[in-house]
Formats: sequence, structure tokens, C-alpha cells
Amino acid sequence: MSHFSGAMAQSARIVEEALEILLPKSQNSETRLFEAMRYATLGGGKRLRSFLVLNSAGIFDVGETCAARVAAAVECVHSYSLAHDDLPCMDDDDLRRGKPSTHRQFGEATAVLVGDALLSVAFEILSDAATHEDPNVRCELVRALALASGPHGMVGGQMLDLESENKTLPVGAVTRLQQLKTGALIAYACEAGAILGKASAPHRQALHAYAHDFGLAFQITDDLLDIEGNPETLGKSAGKDQAAGKSTMVSLLGVERARVQAKILADQAVKHLDLFDEKADLLRAAALFAIDRRA
Amino acid sequence: MSHFSGAMAQSARIVEEALEILLPKSQNSETRLFEAMRYATLGGGKRLRSFLVLNSAGIFDVGETCAARVAAAVECVHSYSLAHDDLPCMDDDDLRRGKPSTHRQFGEATAVLVGDALLSVAFEILSDAATHEDPNVRCELVRALALASGPHGMVGGQMLDLESENKTLPVGAVTRLQQLKTGALIAYACEAGAILGKASAPHRQALHAYAHDFGLAFQITDDLLDIEGNPETLGKSAGKDQAAGKSTMVSLLGVERARVQAKILADQAVKHLDLFDEKADLLRAAALFAIDRRA
Repeated sequence: MSHFSGAMAQSARIVEEALEILLPKSQNSETRLFEAMRYATLGGGKRLRSFLVLNSAGIFDVGETCAARVAAAVECVHSYSLAHDDLPCMDDDDLRRGKPSTHRQFGEATAVLVGDALLSVAFEILSDAATHEDPNVRCELVRALALASGPHGMVGGQMLDLESENKTLPVGAVTRLQQLKTGALIAYACEAGAILGKASAPHRQALHAYAHDFGLAFQITDDLLDIEGNPETLGKSAGKDQAAGKSTMVSLLGVERARVQAKILADQAVKHLDLFDEKADLLRAAALFAIDRRA
Repeated sequence: MSHFSGAMAQSARIVEEALEILLPKSQNSETRLFEAMRYATLGGGKRLRSFLVLNSAGIFDVGETCAARVAAAVECVHSYSLAHDDLPCMDDDDLRRGKPSTHRQFGEATAVLVGDALLSVAFEILSDAATHEDPNVRCELVRALALASGPHGMVGGQMLDLESENKTLPVGAVTRLQQLKTGALIAYACEAGAILGKASAPHRQALHAYAHDFGLAFQITDDLLDIEGNPETLGKSAGKDQAAGKSTMVSLLGVERARVQAKILADQAVKHLDLFDEKADLLRAAALFAIDRRA
């Protein structure tokens, strides 16, 4: 295992442990909800967003407990978005992280509530004094996550995505859609480390720029995998975009040009980290991982 | 119009104005989402929770702009919960606030996203420095709302409610269900004023106790109206609980004993306000309104 994939697995372990503690355990009659929340959130996924939180925080020597709480909050939001996006009235997906999606396992009503509950839990975690001693930092973490996940971020992107079915969008519109749908939360994951570390404006801007290019490269690779991957390694259905008639960078540019574009973006992402020393090496490696993965 | 109903209408105007400014306006391709968010949130409802925020804040001379922002956040959460609860996979309700429910007007996918977006917006509003200059106060507002709306609050209650269909629950279980489903957000609305006003522990506890009894009295009256009311004055479907075979205080105690119980709780609620002067008079009037309304 390379140094990078070891670090990736390590950050997955850290956030898994934090989530294990932070998510409610079964008790009383809400058992079904709590079980479903844990099902939707624990034991799966690359934990890429956690990796970005932990390693951006690492640049500023933020304590791991604080960073792990923020990573857990980001995973709650990510998992909620998957539970809702997979619903029959949305993308109607039966498979997620190699197992039945939340509504397939627990029913639609519970899957809606799981998402709702996880979003509240994310803000509960961030606003707790255990996340950072400075209430200004906690407020900034809350506000930035609310913006990244809300109508001007992730949810707005999902709306654009639903509206884009059976339409051919221009490249600019697809880029904007992806920046909102997946880019906003990825950018938050990278900036969260800077917020926790009370980083200077240039440092924060550098991480924002890194996240921007990283997110787009990551998404193009997702679209390539959607065409080329198989559900077994992906852990989710493949060929969905094509079936839904959605425009992606791959459908617009073709496989080869899309691959080149992803490489350019990943290189640009790394370039933005030039003002950091070797503490940013794992983020540099992550940019290459983003375009060179099989799942 | 009585002094009380005048005050109620006035607080509805205040929060309506705040929401009008705080909710995103139509632009770009997310138009449909923004329109639907405004549809689900603006122009309807008694704004009872806003009334409780504004009047609990009034006891501690909190500025109206701050209180109106918190009231707007609470209405975002309340409106999100209605949009999700009305979904076909949940309570499957076609009518809300006298008009088609959000999914009937905009489709299911949009209704899911409307709720998701409104919850994020609520936390965006609370964490903004415009809500209170002290970041500790803002963090406390965020954390208390996250707890009230999450798996140990409103969402947990909705889960219990779904699980209770076609079961006869004991009185204690029904009380707990209602405390979570509607009581937690009502309690937050009352406590928010105390948080904003940095109230002493006894003052805050008094408002909490008031909210507890108020919430239960309010819910029993809701259950009575569900049996006795008609959809036109209610602005929502009637007879739903009975049709779904749900236990309520009315089905368990009968109409007369339930009405007596509501009166006892409303009187108790008023009693908890004894340590406040006439600034709490509108909250006192609200407890009587809670059990003496037609919608």
C-alpha cells in the first residue's frame, strides 16, 4: 500500500470512529431511525471529504479530535445527500456503497427522515464546544457548511441536475452544476481545516482554489467511471447519466478530451498548494488520486 | 380584534417580512427550487412559533431585528417539516395552509429538496453575525435548534408517529411522541428568546416549563380539531389520525377528558410565567389561544 492510500485508509478509520461515537445509538422506539442513520453513514465510502478535512487541518496543526468532529459533520451531510438523492422520486438508485440504498433497506419514509436527521446532527456537532474552543470558529464552520449544503450549494446543484435530464447543457452550465452539486461540499472540506486553524486569507484562498480544481477533476473522473466502471467495483449503479440523458463533461467533450481536462485540473489544483510546505503533500497526492481511481 | 389577535397578526407580519428578505429570490436555473422554497414558507400559517420567539425575546428586551431572524429560522424548520411530512411516502397530504402541499404543486423531488434547503437556510440565518453580536449566543441558538429538530427532537417524533400507525399506544408514549414531534420546536421557540436575552437559568427554565405544557395543550387541541374541524377552516385535511389508526390523547381519553386535560395544561403553562411581569402577558394569552382556536 502506498503512503497515500495508507493515509487515506487512516483518515477513514479516524472519521469512522468519530461517527461511531457521535451518531445516536438504538434506544426506545426510535430504534429504526437510529439504525438507519448508522446504516446510511457508517461502514462505507472512500471518506474522501474526511481526508480533505483532516489533511487541510493538518497543515495548520489543528488537533485531530477537532478535525475528526468536523470530518464527521461533513460525512453526515454527504451521507444525507446520498440517502435523499437515491430516493425513487430523485435518482431512483437501488445500490450505494455496495449495499442496498437506504430506502431499499428501510423504506422511503425512513430514508427521508434519515437525511433530515443527519443534516441536523451535522450542525449539532459543529456548534458543540468540543469542536473548537473559539465560538467564532464554530459559527464560521456552521455558516460555511450551511452555505455549502443549501440552495446556493449542494441542494441547488441537485435541483439543476434534476432539471438537466434530457437536455443538452453547454459546458459552462455543466461546470456550474457540478461546482454546486459536489464542488461546494468538497470546497468546504478543504476550507474547514483553514477555518479550524484560523489560517491567513491567502492560505485559505489557496485551499479554496485547490478545492475548486480538485472538485471538477474529481467529478469528471466520476463521469468517466459512470461510463467505464462496473457496479461491483463502483459500489453503485453505472451508466446512470447516459440513461437519464444528462449532459456531463464526458458527453460534451468525449472520453479523451475529458480525461485530458481532468489531468489539467488536477495539475492546477496541486499548483495552488505551492505556498505550503511538505505538510500539504497528502493533499497533492489526493489530486492525482482523484483522477486515477477505479471507484 | 382583541389585543392578543392583533399581536399575533403583528408578529406574523414581522416574520413574513424577515422571511421575504432572507429566502433566496429566483435567478439562474435554480428558479424552480427558490420559488418552491418561498411557496412552502411564505404567505400562510398562524406563525405561532414566530409569535413565541418574538414574545419570549420581548421579555428580555431583545432587539426586534435579532428576534425576527430567529423567528424566520424557526419558520424555515417548521415549513421544511411540513413539506417532508406531506410527502406521499410520509403522511401523503394534498392540502396545506389552504393550498396544494408543496409536492402537489412542484413535484416530489422538488419538495424533498425544498425541505433540505430550508433546513440549511435556518442554520445559515442563525450563524450569521446579524442575528446576535455574541458568537456564543449564535452557537447556542444553532445547537439548541439542531437538537430540537434532529433525531432526539422533531425528526425522532415523526419517526415515532409513522411507527404508531394502527397501534394503540399508552398515554405516556403518546405524550413522548408529541413532545418530540411538535413540542421540541415549540420549546425551542420559547427558549430562543431567553438565549438571545442571555436570561438567567430560572428565567430560562420557566420558559421551558411554559413551552412544555403549552406544547402538549396545543397538540391535544390539534387532535380535537382533527376530529371536529373541517378542512376549509383548518387549511389542511381533517380526520387523518383516525384514518391512519393513530393513537392520540383524544382517542385514548375521549373528547371531554382530552378537553379538560388541555385546559389543565394551559393553566399550568400560565402559572410557570409567574416570575415575569406584564411583559409576559401575550405569552399568557397565547396559552388560552392554544386551546380555544378553530384552526
